[in-house]
Amino acid sequence: MVLNEQFENDPDFNKQIDRQKWQFCTGKVGSMDSHKVVAAIETAAKRNGIIKADLYRELHALYHAIIEALHGVTRGQVQLGTILRTVGLRFALVRGNPYDNEEEGEWLAIALYGTIGAPVKGLEHETIGLGVNHI
Amino acid sequence: MVLNEQFENDPDFNKQIDRQKWQFCTGKVGSMDSHKVVAAIETAAKRNGIIKADLYRELHALYHAIIEALHGVTRGQVQLGTILRTVGLRFALVRGNPYDNEEEGEWLAIALYGTIGAPVKGLEHETIGLGVNHI
Amino acid sequence: MVLNEQFENDPDFNKQIDRQKWQFCTGKVGSMDSHKVVAAIETAAKRNGIIKADLYRELHALYHAIIEALHGVTRGQVQLGTILRTVGLRFALVRGNPYDNEEEGEWLAIALYGTIGAPVKGLEHETIGLGVNHI
Amino acid sequence: MVLNEQFENDPDFNKQIDRQKWQFCTGKVGSMDSHKVVAAIETAAKRNGIIKADLYRELHALYHAIIEALHGVTRGQVQLGTILRTVGLRFALVRGNPYDNEEEGEWLAIALYGTIGAPVKGLEHETIGLGVNHI
Amino acid sequence: MVLNEQFENDPDFNKQIDRQKWQFCTGKVGSMDSHKVVAAIETAAKRNGIIKADLYRELHALYHAIIEALHGVTRGQVQLGTILRTVGLRFALVRGNPYDNEEEGEWLAIALYGTIGAPVKGLEHETIGLGVNHI
Amino acid sequence: MVLNEQFENDPDFNKQIDRQKWQFCTGKVGSMDSHKVVAAIETAAKRNGIIKADLYRELHALYHAIIEALHGVTRGQVQLGTILRTVGLRFALVRGNPYDNEEEGEWLAIALYGTIGAPVKGLEHETIGLGVNHI
Ligand SMILES: [Mg+2]
Ligand SMILES: [Mg+2]
Ligand SMILES: [Mg+2]
Ligand SMILES: [Mg+2]
Ligand SMILES: [Mg+2]
Ligand SMILES: [Mg+2]
Repeated sequence: MVLNEQFENDPDFNKQIDRQKWQFCTGKVGSMDSHKVVAAIETAAKRNGIIKADLYRELHALYHAIIEALHGVTRGQVQLGTILRTVGLRFALVRGNPYDNEEEGEWLAIALYGTIGAPVKGLEHETIGLGVNHI
Repeated sequence: MVLNEQFENDPDFNKQIDRQKWQFCTGKVGSMDSHKVVAAIETAAKRNGIIKADLYRELHALYHAIIEALHGVTRGQVQLGTILRTVGLRFALVRGNPYDNEEEGEWLAIALYGTIGAPVKGLEHETIGLGVNHI
Repeated sequence: MVLNEQFENDPDFNKQIDRQKWQFCTGKVGSMDSHKVVAAIETAAKRNGIIKADLYRELHALYHAIIEALHGVTRGQVQLGTILRTVGLRFALVRGNPYDNEEEGEWLAIALYGTIGAPVKGLEHETIGLGVNHI
Repeated sequence: MVLNEQFENDPDFNKQIDRQKWQFCTGKVGSMDSHKVVAAIETAAKRNGIIKADLYRELHALYHAIIEALHGVTRGQVQLGTILRTVGLRFALVRGNPYDNEEEGEWLAIALYGTIGAPVKGLEHETIGLGVNHI
Repeated sequence: MVLNEQFENDPDFNKQIDRQKWQFCTGKVGSMDSHKVVAAIETAAKRNGIIKADLYRELHALYHAIIEALHGVTRGQVQLGTILRTVGLRFALVRGNPYDNEEEGEWLAIALYGTIGAPVKGLEHETIGLGVNHI
Repeated sequence: MVLNEQFENDPDFNKQIDRQKWQFCTGKVGSMDSHKVVAAIETAAKRNGIIKADLYRELHALYHAIIEALHGVTRGQVQLGTILRTVGLRFALVRGNPYDNEEEGEWLAIALYGTIGAPVKGLEHETIGLGVNHI
């Protein structure tokens, strides 16, 4: 379940995704509101059919994966504008079974990569987060 | 400041590191003790001359970067064995100035990538963390 | 100090409360704003005479009990709408001395029970929290 | 998914569990080591067939449910002896589908109830926690 | 309730403490074990009669005040040796009523001041914490 | 790097600051919005020349020091109005080298002292926080 933004347009990576029958989508979100980051990823997941919008089970798996990924991005408080910082993030969502055992079923991984910093362009540094959940 | 374990043996990446006069080292650590993860990274940083061992300033920068990276890995509690989980991590340390302005001086980035899970081989999933600090 | 919403209309429970000279009130609150949950419980406590509104000592005891109970409800970040989730909660407040030793004085317990989830009806699961403080 | 220790020996409750084909087990654990609390619940879950011991998917669901429940018990730091406190807990595990829609599949709930306090008998108060996860 | 280590030997401060019938004690603790910091303060409080050792109410008030003060010292995780750091702290405990209204009763304040850092002398910086609770 | 609001008008303290070529400023902020507390301190630091407004390196050092200091003030969640509380704080910023070794370079300390409590005058208690960072 290698989730890495650099691979998005890499034909080898896409072949691997296809061969394994994994589902994959990417997107971007920039915001000072942490709830908008969550919403943007959830919307992308639904629109791209990564999760079924009407099954709570799937949204629940995605939600907790997103919050886990945000821990990596925010490192301490899952807060952005409330502590005067903003993010510009690319995200990648993968759904599939990364384990050898078929019974492990489907898993979901959400990777976040971008910048976090003051709400002034350039006053920021890189940030990363990964959330993984069974679905 | 692209920190990515896949690039370790990539000649293009190494050229980029060299051209920019950045310092770089990598290592591995597996443990249920979070303090051993911290220690392994600190030791690698000192041995490879990424930080000066006798300057608190540099150790302070590294320490906080490590703890930030561990937030991504642990997603909520910076605890491993105390909540019955273990990690197997590769880490990469880069020191240099990723900004256009030379006055921004040196920065340090520590990337962690590996697995986290139950203390039983295979019962684990991927995890990532990135800590960035000025030095 | 058994605090349980199922007992609210249970005559046995009410007798026990009376016999022990405990004070008791219940209420409901649904919100995406965590401060509204805190406010609803504080208001109920004041209106029902569980705490004296003009004594900071009593509000302080209640406030910390509420925040502790919210830890159980939110499990990691005491945040609701800011991370795109909402709660529908019933709460019960009890004031009294649950210890054998009279010198232990009065204590306050706040129990929260309900649902937490996406701001869409049905996309939610159960949640519970208990805060206990001396008063 | 009513999880409540009072119901353990309640025939009505057991009938409801049976009728819904839910799986159910209970246990006790007292410790100053948070990892022992996690281990005791995992062991009970495996021994009682609530989860399949060799499927990481199921252990992963359980693990995160336990940690969520411990947030309610510990209210801030998922730590016990390391901050000089101990717990005496009863726990109940239920596995089943509490939703009307069959497609929601199986969920797991872990409820914790007991006392937390100083490592001296009597110097403690009640504590509760609930963790819920899809499985 | 001004709690400040510089005042310990200040006759003006001591007069103020006396005039207000406040109780006061100080001590020192250095450790990599956070539970030893808690224990040292609890022991000092009992030995100096700041709290009654056999009343859970008073220990409960003190315990939560200590943990709050440790948040200031540790800034994020109430952990020391488990994340490879140590503290050297002086502490001051005051018990009294800092409010004009006598009904506010007694309160407890615990101030911590010292250094936190790597387990190597000199590789450390200053740290402070204050916990306040009604008793 | 003794940071203490009582010293602000103390000639001895000011002499010490001058002799050591340290930079120093103070200010006040009261708010229910944690981002306004951060902003007020950042603005004071820039206006008083404690940090260079156009160097991210310096803002980054300050930002993390502020967030660390807020941990002491908020003791658990770096949140104010969102959990129905407000602060009235004085702050002091010092920049200089508190170590014997000149190579340790410049450090920054931010001390916060004031009250935290319900958004009603008087229903509050004292609070303190200190953040220290290399710059
Ligand atoms: Mg996991
Ligand atoms: Mg940063
Ligand atoms: Mg307590
Ligand atoms: Mg959930
Ligand atoms: Mg308080
Ligand atoms: Mg530090």
